[in-house]
Amino acid sequence: MKQYLKLDEWKIIEDQFHPEFNEITESIFSLGNGRMGQRGSFEETYTGKTLQGNYVAGVYYPDKTRVGWWKNGYPEYFAKVLNAANWNGLEIKIGDEIVDLNQSTINAFYRELNMKEGYILRTCSITLKSGKSIEIKSIRLNSMADDESGAISFSIKALNFSDTVQVKAFVDGDIKNKDSNYDEKFWDEVQVGAQENTSYVWSKTKKTGFEVVTGQQVQLQLNGNLIQAKAQIGTREKYSELNYQVPVNEGDTLTIFKYAVNLSSENHPSAELLTRAQNYLAKISQKGFDQMLAEQAAAWAAKWAINDIIIKGDVSAQQGIRFNIFQLNQTYTGADDRLNIGPKGFTGEKYGGSTYWDTEAYCIPFYLSTAPQEVSKNLLIYRWKQLDRAIENAGKLGFNQGAALYPMVTMNGEECHNEWEITFEEIHRNGAIAYAIKDYVDYTNDRKHLVEYGWEVLIGISRFWAQRVNWSENLQKYVMLGVTGPNEYENNVNNNFYTNYFAVWCLKYTLEVLAEIQANYPAEAKEKLAKTNFVTKEIEQFNHIIQNMYFPRDEKRGIYLQQDGFLDKVIAPVDSIPAGQRPINQNWSWDRILRSCYIKQADVLQGMYFFENDFTKEEIERNYDFYEPLTVHESSLSPCVHNILAAKLGKEDKSYEFYTRAARLDLDDYNNDTEDGCHITSMAGTWMSIVKGFGGMTIQDHQLNFEPFLPKQWDEYAFKINFRDNQLAIKIHKQGIEIDNLSNTPITLKVKGNPYTIAANSKQAI
Amino acid sequence: MKQYLKLDEWKIIEDQFHPEFNEITESIFSLGNGRMGQRGSFEETYTGKTLQGNYVAGVYYPDKTRVGWWKNGYPEYFAKVLNAANWNGLEIKIGDEIVDLNQSTINAFYRELNMKEGYILRTCSITLKSGKSIEIKSIRLNSMADDESGAISFSIKALNFSDTVQVKAFVDGDIKNKDSNYDEKFWDEVQVGAQENTSYVWSKTKKTGFEVVTGQQVQLQLNGNLIQAKAQIGTREKYSELNYQVPVNEGDTLTIFKYAVNLSSENHPSAELLTRAQNYLAKISQKGFDQMLAEQAAAWAAKWAINDIIIKGDVSAQQGIRFNIFQLNQTYTGADDRLNIGPKGFTGEKYGGSTYWDTEAYCIPFYLSTAPQEVSKNLLIYRWKQLDRAIENAGKLGFNQGAALYPMVTMNGEECHNEWEITFEEIHRNGAIAYAIKDYVDYTNDRKHLVEYGWEVLIGISRFWAQRVNWSENLQKYVMLGVTGPNEYENNVNNNFYTNYFAVWCLKYTLEVLAEIQANYPAEAKEKLAKTNFVTKEIEQFNHIIQNMYFPRDEKRGIYLQQDGFLDKVIAPVDSIPAGQRPINQNWSWDRILRSCYIKQADVLQGMYFFENDFTKEEIERNYDFYEPLTVHESSLSPCVHNILAAKLGKEDKSYEFYTRAARLDLDDYNNDTEDGCHITSMAGTWMSIVKGFGGMTIQDHQLNFEPFLPKQWDEYAFKINFRDNQLAIKIHKQGIEIDNLSNTPITLKVKGNPYTIAANSKQAI
Repeated sequence: MKQYLKLDEWKIIEDQFHPEFNEITESIFSLGNGRMGQRGSFEETYTGKTLQGNYVAGVYYPDKTRVGWWKNGYPEYFAKVLNAANWNGLEIKIGDEIVDLNQSTINAFYRELNMKEGYILRTCSITLKSGKSIEIKSIRLNSMADDESGAISFSIKALNFSDTVQVKAFVDGDIKNKDSNYDEKFWDEVQVGAQENTSYVWSKTKKTGFEVVTGQQVQLQLNGNLIQAKAQIGTREKYSELNYQVPVNEGDTLTIFKYAVNLSSENHPSAELLTRAQNYLAKISQKGFDQMLAEQAAAWAAKWAINDIIIKGDVSAQQGIRFNIFQLNQTYTGADDRLNIGPKGFTGEKYGGSTYWDTEAYCIPFYLSTAPQEVSKNLLIYRWKQLDRAIENAGKLGFNQGAALYPMVTMNGEECHNEWEITFEEIHRNGAIAYAIKDYVDYTNDRKHLVEYGWEVLIGISRFWAQRVNWSENLQKYVMLGVTGPNEYENNVNNNFYTNYFAVWCLKYTLEVLAEIQANYPAEAKEKLAKTNFVTKEIEQFNHIIQNMYFPRDEKRGIYLQQDGFLDKVIAPVDSIPAGQRPINQNWSWDRILRSCYIKQADVLQGMYFFENDFTKEEIERNYDFYEPLTVHESSLSPCVHNILAAKLGKEDKSYEFYTRAARLDLDDYNNDTEDGCHITSMAGTWMSIVKGFGGMTIQDHQLNFEPFLPKQWDEYAFKINFRDNQLAIKIHKQGIEIDNLSNTPITLKVKGNPYTIAANSKQAI
Repeated sequence: MKQYLKLDEWKIIEDQFHPEFNEITESIFSLGNGRMGQRGSFEETYTGKTLQGNYVAGVYYPDKTRVGWWKNGYPEYFAKVLNAANWNGLEIKIGDEIVDLNQSTINAFYRELNMKEGYILRTCSITLKSGKSIEIKSIRLNSMADDESGAISFSIKALNFSDTVQVKAFVDGDIKNKDSNYDEKFWDEVQVGAQENTSYVWSKTKKTGFEVVTGQQVQLQLNGNLIQAKAQIGTREKYSELNYQVPVNEGDTLTIFKYAVNLSSENHPSAELLTRAQNYLAKISQKGFDQMLAEQAAAWAAKWAINDIIIKGDVSAQQGIRFNIFQLNQTYTGADDRLNIGPKGFTGEKYGGSTYWDTEAYCIPFYLSTAPQEVSKNLLIYRWKQLDRAIENAGKLGFNQGAALYPMVTMNGEECHNEWEITFEEIHRNGAIAYAIKDYVDYTNDRKHLVEYGWEVLIGISRFWAQRVNWSENLQKYVMLGVTGPNEYENNVNNNFYTNYFAVWCLKYTLEVLAEIQANYPAEAKEKLAKTNFVTKEIEQFNHIIQNMYFPRDEKRGIYLQQDGFLDKVIAPVDSIPAGQRPINQNWSWDRILRSCYIKQADVLQGMYFFENDFTKEEIERNYDFYEPLTVHESSLSPCVHNILAAKLGKEDKSYEFYTRAARLDLDDYNNDTEDGCHITSMAGTWMSIVKGFGGMTIQDHQLNFEPFLPKQWDEYAFKINFRDNQLAIKIHKQGIEIDNLSNTPITLKVKGNPYTIAANSKQAI
């Protein structure tokens, strides 16, 4: 754990420079607007530790897979999130001396990520080797209002000298991914250019052919007055620059405004990319930096109005949850159904791909409750659009007849993870994708979605399960062999409880949906059944599996087994691992981890979290008490699920402990890996920790139910929820619960199982 | 299957050119002498399909491993067998026209691998595009007598023209491995040079720093008379050449003798490499080609005198077994205890590494019976010398206290395979390495080996097993979790019968050896026990495991289960796989293969082959009848074991079928992969198919026992055996069995369990 950042309710603050943690700070200070994003690196030259990263949503590269021995069915490539042209670039010279914090004495330093208004601010006072001292102030944003653009205001004040300041503002497209498998560069140049105060780099990805024009426009001010400096322009391969020379006197402040755009061929015809980029630049530079900053604050204010969670009495927890919500909103806005929520968002390139089961299992509940319905719907449509690819993917493994296996990692629907034990075996992801449909429909009541989109996805997934199980003559049951559950510290196991349970649930739900759409939308249903070549004997087949699935169980302990043979391991609690050997994934061989009883993240318990109503509280508790002590929580997705279950089971201290771990995972660098980027998808889990964990939010009989408690460390907490046509504000404080119906219709809901009806636009204390 | 090669008892013949199969022919026509070797490519320019390969024993490169996601304990590199400098090189021009079979009309073509005398011969008559016709005759050998050298005699007869023949004889060290992970070249140049009629390339491997001087010396003859042509010399990076211009008249024959040497820093001080290479070249060129050829024939005659197996009445079977014996002798001579038997020998570079469990499980029995005792002993000492590395290897996985895990693939004792499911899990290899000690000691009666070398290896291996099992509270037995058995179509299974059985056997045998060495060599034993930090409570620990090991079993069928849960699979015989889907490893996804019941190579049955005496014939038959129909034999190591078991069970037709498949695997390209090189280690299995399969050779009560039968397709077969101080010749023909004691002492042996004593130097018919 590292705790060098200061606590504040709305800001992340570094009040003295920590060059040793600079890559971590860059991850945490990342900016994004759903369409583009970047790590929080300095604008000017910095020769210390830094990882530059600029990303454009939806743009990827199929990097040839690295495996030891190729086998049939292995994916051809791993889709890399592409590090793209850097538009931050500034080189500042005082006389001939480059401004570089790594080569200067730092007299004062402060930077903040302002989450309330969506920008990063830095002020510092430094002395160069020559003895010249300057003050720097920079503000940067990735605009939410104009989501293909960003802007920088960068000021230098000459404290003790008069000299010429040389400003080189550049766009650098000669960028390499740190994690390139074969040390290749993924971008080719289409064209570069510079003219007056603008310049651009037009790049094209190898193989995939995505084109991106990254352009900049520069304005200069001296002591607040615009100056008409003429740029000396320059270009080389994949690079363009604008150079200015400005004489400054002691006490003068030179301000550079840099406006930048990223236009991608995903959103614009290739032929018009350049013109549109130039127009876009003209538009925003005309708007001006202050106006952009004001619009940014307004856009964030609108988001916080529905998203914010307020915690009183615990600044650390408050900062944590806001940071999580802020990053989620920066990553995905729901505006484009081709995009998804990458595991690192725009904060780093590790893991590659944009879409994991995290989207359905962790993120959709957050967006369902805190964003317009379309946002979640777009995430569902994303999968629906990729159904053909999921069917192809299953086909490569030998499945047929419309069986669909959604990929473990993808950009465009094709599988691109590169380990068989994950790719072929971590098939439980199919379950979460089906579950998200139910989650969305139950939450929004958009039941027509089932016939419009849901059925096709569900029947594909269910056909996969029906083919993936096999009848064991030995057990006289269906079994599912050779899988990896959510707990990736086990590979290629048989009868993983979570996967078997989810398979059966998918089959049941598919049959329920079949009945519902046939009853409610007979004409559309008929068409969809024909389109999916559905035959009624599939009903019989599904039912036979539903009725005869095998679940490994230990009757003595009254628990389900994570998989066949789990109890043949040496069972000893995590506490018994000697000090210094954790995290085990950094200290133990993979051999030892695989054979141990230690669990990376919830597995049986993940199933009980999803299907809470299928199990008694006692049953959940027996399983929790058996599995949680064996769990090392080395996945960022683990604490939140345990938090929710612990809360449900009344283990309030444990629940709070899990919350803290989830909320401050990146801020405190718990897993010693934030320098690679932030854990974006788990941030939605943090939100769930409060709303579903402490707040105890569930849906019962189509109504919201809350079973909240107030962690004893807090004075109160409050959040808002969109539910169907209502918006509610819920506050839990020491005196009780306050529910404010912000809608124009009355709402009936339950608190601790008791129904309450709250009139429109009114508040009720419970 | 491809059957373009002609049948002959002593030769492999291609009597018309098959350019489409040229890479297969190159594999089959490979030459070697244990110290160096090469694929059977043409000497002169050939622009058609070819894979040049030259290899120097013991020289390797640690190529950085390719994996998707690195995990602790993964090996750093994969040791590549290095494709080395090509010393074959000849470019022949008639006027300005390059001689190239791929650009010529071929009027006649013949080539043979002469196994009796150890060379390749080619004659062909071709017409160049210009209309000039020539005859080529080439003979090439890798000398057994001078095992760092080779020689070529290459003649051109001008059939219908007079012109200048330009000869460029070169050594090319600018060589790349086809299977380089990152497209790197592995050799640097130290120096190149040329002088008069010699030239050389002195190369050094990157990282490992092996140095090799490859030199050539050239002599020319015109119509049988030496000519004193002066070479025009040339060098460039990693390359040297000698150029000659010889005017020839119609009817003239120009002969190029090319003598070559490969001297490695493994065998010579680096500082003397060049001088020694030059001296070596002088020595062999003085000897002359004819003399070298005669010495080669003599060396092979000596080998065949003890190695040959004669089969009458079946030329195909005769050719097959001789080809197998020939390649084994080319690959490994036993002269150097640092060397081992690579899976492809000197016939290709696929698979890398030199040492697999194949050496102990398949090759040692061959060398024990057909070579001086030192040959097998050197193979054992090879592992003894690498014990420290095996302990380090186990240490990387978390084992300690002297536990040793021998590598799956190695060059120098370090593990260098690159798939966790093999590296960490295919640990049964440890068993075969222990078994080879017993095999060697029982066969040779060199019982002192146990205290000198055996104990240290055995205790290291047994300690590994003792740590690798764990006590299952659930079963109240020891279990072994997370292994891969010999059947690599299963990964990460629990309680693989073969591995569990072998572990227990190792523990038992280690305790037996302990008792024996303490009784017979008390002083040496005391020293070795101290050296290995042996404590007596290990005896108790080993015994507890021996008495309480878990073996998965199906009582109903009376068979052992290959692993936990095997019967939960869909069990259907290989026959039920639809036509066109085999081999399954080329047609099915890895997912499908892993979940299927299909077995790559003997697994439970491999155990029953090793420990035949532990099981009744009925028990073996029940297991054979269950598992063999599920076995696809997609490993070259599979048919021989099944042949031996089928023979034992009286399934003579099946046994013969397996023999044919084993013996002609490469000649007929059964597995469609001979172009990558020959399956060297499985060739020892073919030898076992005859001697242990048809011949039924076992050791019973320290005596040889034969239970032979004559396959009905054959008239007779005969082989020789070294057993302790005796040499025996055994002939099985229609009238019965003839045993010829070639030694000066009488021998007692058994035939079909009945004892016979055969006087010195006499023959007995049974």
